[in-house]
Amino acid sequence: MDKEMGGAEPAQFFEVFFGLRDGLSNERESLKRYLSDVKEIFVDGSEAEQRLQKENPLIYEYYDLKVPENEGDLAFGTSITYPGKIGKEYFMTKGHFHRILDTAEVYYCTRGRGYVMMENPEKEWDCRELVFGKVVYVPRRFAHRSINVGDEPLVTFFCFRADAGHDYETIEAHGFLKVIMEKDGKPKIIDNPNWK
Amino acid sequence: MDKEMGGAEPAQFFEVFFGLRDGLSNERESLKRYLSDVKEIFVDGSEAEQRLQKENPLIYEYYDLKVPENEGDLAFGTSITYPGKIGKEYFMTKGHFHRILDTAEVYYCTRGRGYVMMENPEKEWDCRELVFGKVVYVPRRFAHRSINVGDEPLVTFFCFRADAGHDYETIEAHGFLKVIMEKDGKPKIIDNPNWK
Repeated sequence: MDKEMGGAEPAQFFEVFFGLRDGLSNERESLKRYLSDVKEIFVDGSEAEQRLQKENPLIYEYYDLKVPENEGDLAFGTSITYPGKIGKEYFMTKGHFHRILDTAEVYYCTRGRGYVMMENPEKEWDCRELVFGKVVYVPRRFAHRSINVGDEPLVTFFCFRADAGHDYETIEAHGFLKVIMEKDGKPKIIDNPNWK
Repeated sequence: MDKEMGGAEPAQFFEVFFGLRDGLSNERESLKRYLSDVKEIFVDGSEAEQRLQKENPLIYEYYDLKVPENEGDLAFGTSITYPGKIGKEYFMTKGHFHRILDTAEVYYCTRGRGYVMMENPEKEWDCRELVFGKVVYVPRRFAHRSINVGDEPLVTFFCFRADAGHDYETIEAHGFLKVIMEKDGKPKIIDNPNWK
């Protein structure tokens, strides 16, 4: 092309590349969550502690591209949740509400197999499968968490209103209503025994 | 899973599958734009007419999943622009502004090679390359059009605020400032000779 392609300028012209297979960008730094960062999210705290004696696995990573937080802008990126379990519980993200609760989010799965667990402040919940090619719509008001039940990375492309914000504290305080555990070699949704 | 996964309910729980290779859904009907529907977008009207004497190729197709038009919801889907040319001009989409001009859009390319051409009402413009794995951010206030300069379908996943709306009329009235033509076997950006 005979025209200069300028540098990235968030919320103005702006582009980024993600590997379609691994979901990773070689231009941006991901945010990495190791077991030591998120051990409290797993039901079996002693299993998490025992694992940490031996190793500190990377549970998930994702991108925050710092799009200005305007209602007319969009935040997006990839999220990669790695395969594995703590006891019988699959690796997963912390999960969060949006601070502007009335904003939705879209997850487009480009690799792997897992679920999006969702719940709203009225304690309604749902759980939808992610497989490559599948888009799951997270409705307004629903907290959401990705859970990898497969044996390869669960890679999703996400998009939400750039001003939506993240409320991690509410979920940290009481946990999700439901968790997914392996039973007889298959994922099963059960009540969260640690729910407060 | 031991839980019923209910039917699609837009802007509530809602999921859809797109083939990662062809970008097509087998659950939803795409909107198809044949040459006869969009012949006016090409610079060389007589080439378009001559082609229509022989055949009426599918130029592009995309999905409108009818997400309710709320500012907290998100419209998304795939867009597939097919390879081909009318004279020296590559197959492309009509292109549009958002009715709520101050809303951005995200394009994630999962196959093919092309460009997003963008311009705002102040006649600023830019053009960014789409290749698989690349995300192009269309800033607020910028009309946008996809152009396929490769020899396979250009498949993108798009997302924007569900209430943004489409203004096709402004572009229909004066065209884009710049067009992309093949020159010496390569794409080249030139002034639109038909610009009004």
